[in-house]
Amino acid sequence: MTPLITLTTDFGLSDEYAGVMKGVIYSRCPAATIVDLTHGIRPQDVRQAAQLIAAAYKYFPQNTIHVVVVDPGVGSSRRIILLEADGHLFLAPDNGVTSLLFPQTSKVYELSNSDLFLKPVSHTFHGRDIFAPVAAHLACGFPPHSTGHAIAKESLVSLALPTPSLSSNTLCGMVTDIDHFGNLITNISREVAGRFCADNFQNLRVTVGSLTIHGVATSYSTVETDGPVALFGSRDLLEISIYQGNVSRKLKLGLDSKVSLSI
Amino acid sequence: MTPLITLTTDFGLSDEYAGVMKGVIYSRCPAATIVDLTHGIRPQDVRQAAQLIAAAYKYFPQNTIHVVVVDPGVGSSRRIILLEADGHLFLAPDNGVTSLLFPQTSKVYELSNSDLFLKPVSHTFHGRDIFAPVAAHLACGFPPHSTGHAIAKESLVSLALPTPSLSSNTLCGMVTDIDHFGNLITNISREVAGRFCADNFQNLRVTVGSLTIHGVATSYSTVETDGPVALFGSRDLLEISIYQGNVSRKLKLGLDSKVSLSI
Amino acid sequence: MTPLITLTTDFGLSDEYAGVMKGVIYSRCPAATIVDLTHGIRPQDVRQAAQLIAAAYKYFPQNTIHVVVVDPGVGSSRRIILLEADGHLFLAPDNGVTSLLFPQTSKVYELSNSDLFLKPVSHTFHGRDIFAPVAAHLACGFPPHSTGHAIAKESLVSLALPTPSLSSNTLCGMVTDIDHFGNLITNISREVAGRFCADNFQNLRVTVGSLTIHGVATSYSTVETDGPVALFGSRDLLEISIYQGNVSRKLKLGLDSKVSLSI
Repeated sequence: MTPLITLTTDFGLSDEYAGVMKGVIYSRCPAATIVDLTHGIRPQDVRQAAQLIAAAYKYFPQNTIHVVVVDPGVGSSRRIILLEADGHLFLAPDNGVTSLLFPQTSKVYELSNSDLFLKPVSHTFHGRDIFAPVAAHLACGFPPHSTGHAIAKESLVSLALPTPSLSSNTLCGMVTDIDHFGNLITNISREVAGRFCADNFQNLRVTVGSLTIHGVATSYSTVETDGPVALFGSRDLLEISIYQGNVSRKLKLGLDSKVSLSI
Repeated sequence: MTPLITLTTDFGLSDEYAGVMKGVIYSRCPAATIVDLTHGIRPQDVRQAAQLIAAAYKYFPQNTIHVVVVDPGVGSSRRIILLEADGHLFLAPDNGVTSLLFPQTSKVYELSNSDLFLKPVSHTFHGRDIFAPVAAHLACGFPPHSTGHAIAKESLVSLALPTPSLSSNTLCGMVTDIDHFGNLITNISREVAGRFCADNFQNLRVTVGSLTIHGVATSYSTVETDGPVALFGSRDLLEISIYQGNVSRKLKLGLDSKVSLSI
Repeated sequence: MTPLITLTTDFGLSDEYAGVMKGVIYSRCPAATIVDLTHGIRPQDVRQAAQLIAAAYKYFPQNTIHVVVVDPGVGSSRRIILLEADGHLFLAPDNGVTSLLFPQTSKVYELSNSDLFLKPVSHTFHGRDIFAPVAAHLACGFPPHSTGHAIAKESLVSLALPTPSLSSNTLCGMVTDIDHFGNLITNISREVAGRFCADNFQNLRVTVGSLTIHGVATSYSTVETDGPVALFGSRDLLEISIYQGNVSRKLKLGLDSKVSLSI
């Protein structure tokens, strides 16, 4: 069984960049199956990509090769790394984009086997010249340890991601993502919120901007159309939503907005 | 031959949602071929999705599995249904999104075989937890009748879609879709228009907003650049267009605009 | 090995158009592998598509079938052509969109074997009715010469693409593409620029709008965040960029802006 390859980039879909990566992959591993996770990461937004890949990878089969090219440092001396984590492989720049996977990471290699790269390697498009051909070789059975040399996990660049904090009976978090529907996705997990309220989710008060919501619902449709709702979304993180509406646009709330929970 | 699976959603392409559905499908049916019909349905726009899937499905091979997840009622008690229609399978919420296929529908099942679902099933993302794994099982040969229990077609939610009406020598329809080019797609089919004008399409006067077009053309390029044109488009519905322009933007005409035909 | 099929269109991703083409292809050649190069060509922008396909094709395996449907003349008497160039096949309207491939073109056919087309052929959607089924047949081994009759390369419509010009020690080019990141892509190749400055790229002054950049860099990250940089991008063309910013938006510079090089 040829493993899957997933692609996560900030390339957008109007240029040839993502398509060209697929051409390079199929040229080297014609049996590959490629899934676009997204090419819609905001330009250079390493945090958005880090959160997305951590949320998505586990729904793919073991041995899937996840290629993440959000890479403002392309052409600089930043390293390109291959992570083995939780039975999956991750190919990414060493800029923190795989930070959320470090706890599950068992091995890390720095790519250095240039025999696998396109010739010549450009300074502007390593997605095409390095990531794509290496992913193709891995998909077709090339052993991970031969792509480069082992390095210590501790040496990797780590992203400083905000975590919720407790102060005088209030749990303070923030909006760390906004999805296509305008839902505000926070950094407060069901587990953390549950510990805070002893699993009495009905008693929680969720405040963001001028909006306060009483109780956490189970689904969007528990309220009237246009009604605000707080729930645990598909990443199992606390989300603030408006049923059939766009809460981010309506309340003009963006990334990094503060969210607080009280009882 | 493993059947195709098509996906039609309002998920957009910037989040992991569509990609995660593919991960779930490939995990259960590695030989599947997946086609994105679109993930660009306007959020919660059941009518748009209903029209699109009805226009598109017939260009796919028999036994294709069409998954339609435009599902504002996710997590509520709305049913999920599997339709057999015209040699194809359709997996969708029971919210009217498959209404236009009812005339060709031979069998309907309500999904209830939870052995096929992801565990646990969330209340917010049935595309991932129910639709994707069931589609995968169907693609790999699982029999439709074992996904749930048969229900009566008459029990399904039906969408009230506007139909053209005749009043004092005028055929009145409306704009029910606007495509990427800004073309105004109406609910007036070639057949209905042909009956109205006894197939003398050259004699028809088509009025929308302040614009009146004399005669129905065969192709966009029969007029000058920027010239307005009425024709039967790729869905065989009457369309109003501007050659190499965007008529919707130029005339500020949107969905539900009235369109009238006279001779 | 079944050849790849790539798709390049201006259809966007919100309608069923691109998906329907894939349905037609898989109906006729189930083993096909399809890659979306882009469906985001600006409506009717033949030049954008011409530049993109010329930049992208060479990263695909030999015998790939590249389908380019940017086709304002659909339904008119414009021809549909099949090019054999550089070991690849190109299926496109005869409107100049394959102009940049003419130097490498060894054979040209005008499609005329209507046995391969969908019946009936519409006047508005040849992507579905002609391009897709012919591509599928080619992918499954149908010989190119049987799709139509040979025609002279000299008879093809050619696009008048601007080339850089030299006047009084200044090399004058222009912005011919703007990518998703807002990078301004010019028509000045590394080769042409190198000849102009005798490969002393450090000495070049690059002027666009009110901005003058001294020296050509090797990668985006050689400057500070928000700093302007000129470099040869992934197409090996001179590009003007702002590190981690959008230069087109910031300087309000669009397509056809003048770019000049001096020493």
